[in-house]
Amino acid sequence: MSQQGITPRASDYSQWYLDVIAAGELVDKSPVRGCMVIKPHGYGIWESVQNDLDARFKATGHVNAYFPMFIPQSFLSKEAEHVEGFAKECALVTHHRLRSSDSGGVEPDPAAKLEEPLVVRPTSETIIWHMYGKWINSHRDLPLLINQWANVVRWEMRTRPFLRTAEFLWQEGHTAHATEDEAVEEATRMLGVYSDFAHETLAIPVVPGIKSATERFAGAEETYTIEAMMQNGWALQAGTSHFLGQNFAKAFDVTFQNSDGNLEHVWATSWGVSTRLVGAVIMAHSDDTGLVLPPKVAPVQVVLVPIWRKDEDKERVLAFAKAAKDRLDGTVRVHLDDREKMKPGAKYFEWERKGVPLRLEVGPRDVDGNAVFCARRTGGKKFGIPVDDDFVSVIEAELRGIQDGLLAKATQQRDAWTFRVETYAAMKDQMAKQAGFYLVPWHDDAVTEREIKDDCKATIRCFPLDCQDEAAGRTCFYSGRPATHMAIFARAY
Amino acid sequence: MSQQGITPRASDYSQWYLDVIAAGELVDKSPVRGCMVIKPHGYGIWESVQNDLDARFKATGHVNAYFPMFIPQSFLSKEAEHVEGFAKECALVTHHRLRSSDSGGVEPDPAAKLEEPLVVRPTSETIIWHMYGKWINSHRDLPLLINQWANVVRWEMRTRPFLRTAEFLWQEGHTAHATEDEAVEEATRMLGVYSDFAHETLAIPVVPGIKSATERFAGAEETYTIEAMMQNGWALQAGTSHFLGQNFAKAFDVTFQNSDGNLEHVWATSWGVSTRLVGAVIMAHSDDTGLVLPPKVAPVQVVLVPIWRKDEDKERVLAFAKAAKDRLDGTVRVHLDDREKMKPGAKYFEWERKGVPLRLEVGPRDVDGNAVFCARRTGGKKFGIPVDDDFVSVIEAELRGIQDGLLAKATQQRDAWTFRVETYAAMKDQMAKQAGFYLVPWHDDAVTEREIKDDCKATIRCFPLDCQDEAAGRTCFYSGRPATHMAIFARAY
Repeated sequence: MSQQGITPRASDYSQWYLDVIAAGELVDKSPVRGCMVIKPHGYGIWESVQNDLDARFKATGHVNAYFPMFIPQSFLSKEAEHVEGFAKECALVTHHRLRSSDSGGVEPDPAAKLEEPLVVRPTSETIIWHMYGKWINSHRDLPLLINQWANVVRWEMRTRPFLRTAEFLWQEGHTAHATEDEAVEEATRMLGVYSDFAHETLAIPVVPGIKSATERFAGAEETYTIEAMMQNGWALQAGTSHFLGQNFAKAFDVTFQNSDGNLEHVWATSWGVSTRLVGAVIMAHSDDTGLVLPPKVAPVQVVLVPIWRKDEDKERVLAFAKAAKDRLDGTVRVHLDDREKMKPGAKYFEWERKGVPLRLEVGPRDVDGNAVFCARRTGGKKFGIPVDDDFVSVIEAELRGIQDGLLAKATQQRDAWTFRVETYAAMKDQMAKQAGFYLVPWHDDAVTEREIKDDCKATIRCFPLDCQDEAAGRTCFYSGRPATHMAIFARAY
Repeated sequence: MSQQGITPRASDYSQWYLDVIAAGELVDKSPVRGCMVIKPHGYGIWESVQNDLDARFKATGHVNAYFPMFIPQSFLSKEAEHVEGFAKECALVTHHRLRSSDSGGVEPDPAAKLEEPLVVRPTSETIIWHMYGKWINSHRDLPLLINQWANVVRWEMRTRPFLRTAEFLWQEGHTAHATEDEAVEEATRMLGVYSDFAHETLAIPVVPGIKSATERFAGAEETYTIEAMMQNGWALQAGTSHFLGQNFAKAFDVTFQNSDGNLEHVWATSWGVSTRLVGAVIMAHSDDTGLVLPPKVAPVQVVLVPIWRKDEDKERVLAFAKAAKDRLDGTVRVHLDDREKMKPGAKYFEWERKGVPLRLEVGPRDVDGNAVFCARRTGGKKFGIPVDDDFVSVIEAELRGIQDGLLAKATQQRDAWTFRVETYAAMKDQMAKQAGFYLVPWHDDAVTEREIKDDCKATIRCFPLDCQDEAAGRTCFYSGRPATHMAIFARAY
């Protein structure tokens, strides 16, 4: 971030993102390549995400558990496609002890070399399906609906805070079912949970769809995704849900006795979202002043800033602000910024950059009028709110209004920048003017998909669930062959 | 666990513990040495612990953050004592990629060897104090009150579910202060938070105290501890809080400008509890029938078991049980066990072994009487509870009663087995009859402490905070020298 402040979005969107994160005190670089430190204000957003999603998972019948973060190296080669996708860039534990070195430091003790290296989980399908093999015997053991909150590691070469880091935090659901239909239903149900969550909580109008084979999860039969549009028109994959077929059940030999007494392989799903969602929230809503947060995920929803010049005002202003805070406590996440020797303007500046949705200013005249003076982070005229019996409900309504406003604005942008084009030339032409979601009739083919990526960096984000029937009778925008799908192409993070 | 069921405590306490865990479906062995899989019912207990403690941390001004789980190897040798305590048995990441091996499997790619190995965190003081060095400049940046929920790894040779595992889950608080007094106050405050939590939530009457130098955390000036007594009279260290002095600030050169404009090193604390607490709960309260859980940590507090023989009863019994569940939902954690083709007796058996505090049976006659038939996991006569407007508050009162009863019982046992002895001979004599807490006048000396450990396996659990004034004028129970402390000796996990 420059001394002058935050780089405007229009001049350098990538730098703007990094500046907003720095100004909002969300993360810091760590001494470990590709790993970030999530600072309290950034972690607070993740906690809001966790609490909300965890309740949704439990409401749909899931329970949490915890599996080891170390996976025997040999497990990763059991599912053929999975090993291709995940075995490559991962952290390997090879020793279990340090010894003093001649240079006065420490070094791995050669005598403590592991017989089999351990992989730090890049995802947990393999170890979980190893365990499911022990737990599942009969159809009475199914469905098994387990989620895990955990850290995972994928050794990324180019990292970017929240969006792509070597270690990240996530949840991974892993479910086992007696039939293919039930597993597909679960995978789509969880996509719906993610989609609802993105709309209702993150205020991000994601597009749910199916991934092309190229972008499918390694080991899945079908990958469902929610795709979000950022303010530069680029796409960001915000969550995925996989129908895994019987691939992992076969790799780990997990069978169950069905009600007819026959042995069958179990059907599987897995689904996950990560701290990447925090990056999505930042990019979707923030502005050139700094972070803008939907109230539902804001660690602080309302900040009270007391203002006084004369000493005789201090006590009554603070007491009034404290009383206002006490009214809000328990209903909204409220913070009283009573730091001394710091001017109100500096406080406003700081809380704006931290994306706090509502700022309530309390000066001597507000105390006299039994009111607070309210400023919305999202703009508009400031206005007074009486601190009376309706105070809490007025604040709640304001927060709802901000939440709804952010969703409406993001939806408007997504719709404005979703272009329906019939030819590849038209897409390239329009793309040169504005990045966005390009909805096109498509003949599914990995080769032409690759050609397009190489030519203009656009990739298939998904086949949107809600418009696949439109493909019938149309021709592919690229190859001219009969369309098999409606596809969204976009530049993506 | 034997086919016959759970080994009685009296015949083999260690095996009983493992049997209770297996019967309660709390953990399973994993394919990775020393790492356990925490199954949903076990993880549910940890979630209760997390939710309760997290609220207590926030109420005392702490915020959560997240630091990388990898620590550069060189960091561990920066604090002299810390390296002795932690650098030895830890997991070392040396490579970041696998490649295909000639045998058809995978192996670490020699081309992807890290320049500096990374240590999987055994605790995070080093990386956190590296970051604090960047964050702390002035007294205005202090205090810094941060907590982290995370997994950590210590390569243990002898493991035991929950009590000692290679990977475990925990929280670690790391705070920075401007003065020694503030740091000591913080360390003791958090010991108080742990102690209150143990009493109020885990129903375990822990003894708060100070560790002897021998048992102090590597890098601490003072280690505070809460010590719990298990049902065999052994001690279990349930949580520790450390006053770190300026040791880590000096090792990582973390200074601040005080209000006089001078540079000073920062004062530090750290404090943590882990999934070991789940082991403490199991050992403190369970019986020969299986798990017994304090209601405040029970994943399921009330289970409803509908009973019918004739088909015509099924519907109305289920509807009544469902209505009773709906009344309780939102106030208590309630589960309706409506599995078909499973006899009520088998359900009772399962829920008893899972430690559910209250079982409500609902048969046709209960429906006729608008009541449920209630059995407490902790025993006593079964009794009817009308399903009327008082239903929820009666259930809540029952749960409170069970919670209080468990604490009372554990306190009674702790007091009965806390022996005040004046001589070493008396301790050995009594210890042969009953393990327990031996409260003795003690002349602090690491050599005699070691002699006692070698001779009878008893170690100093702590110098209890509440009775140190009793040492004055007395003589050490072992050496006959003037007593410096009152000490609790015990066999410990």
